[in-house]
Amino acid sequence: MEKDKLWMEKAVNLALKGRGYTGSNPIVGAVIVKEGECIGRGYHKNFGGDHAEIEALKDCRESPEGATMYVTLEPCCHFGKTPPCTLAIEKAKIKRVVVGCLDPNSLVRGKGVEYLKSRGIEVTLDVLKEKCSELNKEFLFSMSKKRPYILLKSATSLDGKIATSKGESKWITSEESRMDSHRYRAVYNGILVGIGTVLGDNPSLTNRSGVGENPNRIVLDSNLKVPLNANILNIKDNAKTIIFTSSLDIEKKKLLEAGGAEIVKVNRDEYGGLSIVEILKELYKRGIYKLLVEGGSKVHGSFLKSGFVDEVVYYIAPKLIGGKAARSSIEGIGIESLKDAMELEFSSVEKVGPDIKLVGRRKCLRD
Amino acid sequence: MEKDKLWMEKAVNLALKGRGYTGSNPIVGAVIVKEGECIGRGYHKNFGGDHAEIEALKDCRESPEGATMYVTLEPCCHFGKTPPCTLAIEKAKIKRVVVGCLDPNSLVRGKGVEYLKSRGIEVTLDVLKEKCSELNKEFLFSMSKKRPYILLKSATSLDGKIATSKGESKWITSEESRMDSHRYRAVYNGILVGIGTVLGDNPSLTNRSGVGENPNRIVLDSNLKVPLNANILNIKDNAKTIIFTSSLDIEKKKLLEAGGAEIVKVNRDEYGGLSIVEILKELYKRGIYKLLVEGGSKVHGSFLKSGFVDEVVYYIAPKLIGGKAARSSIEGIGIESLKDAMELEFSSVEKVGPDIKLVGRRKCLRD
Repeated sequence: MEKDKLWMEKAVNLALKGRGYTGSNPIVGAVIVKEGECIGRGYHKNFGGDHAEIEALKDCRESPEGATMYVTLEPCCHFGKTPPCTLAIEKAKIKRVVVGCLDPNSLVRGKGVEYLKSRGIEVTLDVLKEKCSELNKEFLFSMSKKRPYILLKSATSLDGKIATSKGESKWITSEESRMDSHRYRAVYNGILVGIGTVLGDNPSLTNRSGVGENPNRIVLDSNLKVPLNANILNIKDNAKTIIFTSSLDIEKKKLLEAGGAEIVKVNRDEYGGLSIVEILKELYKRGIYKLLVEGGSKVHGSFLKSGFVDEVVYYIAPKLIGGKAARSSIEGIGIESLKDAMELEFSSVEKVGPDIKLVGRRKCLRD
Repeated sequence: MEKDKLWMEKAVNLALKGRGYTGSNPIVGAVIVKEGECIGRGYHKNFGGDHAEIEALKDCRESPEGATMYVTLEPCCHFGKTPPCTLAIEKAKIKRVVVGCLDPNSLVRGKGVEYLKSRGIEVTLDVLKEKCSELNKEFLFSMSKKRPYILLKSATSLDGKIATSKGESKWITSEESRMDSHRYRAVYNGILVGIGTVLGDNPSLTNRSGVGENPNRIVLDSNLKVPLNANILNIKDNAKTIIFTSSLDIEKKKLLEAGGAEIVKVNRDEYGGLSIVEILKELYKRGIYKLLVEGGSKVHGSFLKSGFVDEVVYYIAPKLIGGKAARSSIEGIGIESLKDAMELEFSSVEKVGPDIKLVGRRKCLRD
């Protein structure tokens, strides 16, 4: 059992190499062990590419017949972009498969394990389960809830401001914090902002961390005000742009579509904003399982009010700004009664340059 | 030299026993060592009581003649509430005095050391200087700047709110955080709030940490709106109450004075609030060297705008509240340009119950 954990640990480390490159796919690592020695290793390198199991089999320096495979996530048993891994495992005459955690994706969900067992392959489940689940916590959550896992990100002064009373906001936090936050753009395959942010900051919303690919760019734009020359429409960035709107302006829609953006019409919700429920449904359909919500404060307010916030990351600068008119990170209507405030648990506290990074997860996530 | 540090360490630990009980006096510890053994120890126990040096001399189990005294702060050489310690040291025939740090109080400032040297007593300076200064950093700062050291305290949600949009504020942070914050009320000998806080929360502003005494209670009340039955006027609390105002209402002034409060008239500043400069001058005159500013957000705004914030402590609850109308910790006019934001350095990050406690010190304090 202890040996199983050691080999699974290696598979976990392999999985991590794929972080930022697998798009809507989970990251997965696998090692193949025969007579106490590792004879093959692999990880899922990019969306549409070979799964970790196949990579490991291809990597084998001797026949995997009779060997044990350690894989962080349950092997798939369906034809997707690639053939089922369970079939390849069977063909390779692997004797035993050790699985880190099950895949809640309805196309897999225990079926992979069942298939292997039905073929006489020994299966051991839940080795380093927590660690393996953590690798793809957003993906696993999304698969079971049928909506993206939502991370709300903000950067504020110690007194909670995201700009001065005159609207100056660049930059409150340090270069180190901004770089650190870019890493989320690799892991999350969707980044969402409001039209206010697009008009005010004209961001590219690309991943400039140096690792991983660009996320899909998503804008909430009720009245299709996004300018045709906005940076988020830059097709050179190799990133898709999806604009949610309730506008009926066919002209503007056509122009934006001609520029490469996808325009999706949704209804407004009871608070007058675009329906977050509908937006999340549409994003899930498009394979956006990990959504990074980067503001502004009105959009953050809509997500908070809708109840769809699973995790938050706050970079807090050692500065005081003050001012009744200065914006804070979450505005909109807000929560009226303290008992309804969204309860989190701090999962990590870290110094990033001169700033403090606080990560909180929604309390009921554990339930 | 290493031995000196070890003995001074003991003196530091003794000094800490007085924390919360010495009012406007610094905390000080002393040990007397003869032939490698500690023969007496003492610390300043309460305002007006014997100084640490005298306590240690009285504690000696054999004659201190020829011994070395370790004391965290320069011995005084003037007649105050007690006779000068330098005289007692001389009379006791102490051979050598090791001093942690000099006392910037203009009545002492090097004179204590000079006196001892003039009497042929050997003096060693600055042993564990940083640690000894830290013991009384607020006091030492206050003595050199001729104004109180100012700690701004707040308790917010992760998104920087101190209340919901409906004004609900009890409680955002945990019981543990509230208890922790009470400890500052023992160490700081003045606690200041605005009239809004008095009218809204009717606080007692007493120290309920179980250790130390109550601070002086200070209210900024431009128009003397404080009700005669306000908790801060409760004389049973054994805590003085000082009300700063610009009001000319003699009637109300008399009533409040009859109730035991001191009313101090100050001018308004350029922003229309009471002059913080004048208030600090008055507080310093009254021996309030360590001032805890507990809000509300308008008062915090006045202190920020005036530039008089030396340290801040924020208790941050793992909650999101949101809302454009929800109050944040520092309002008022605020800083308009980011380059003018008050720069701090985080000096400690700590988990308190479910909350995070961030302490920041003003950056230029180091200069």
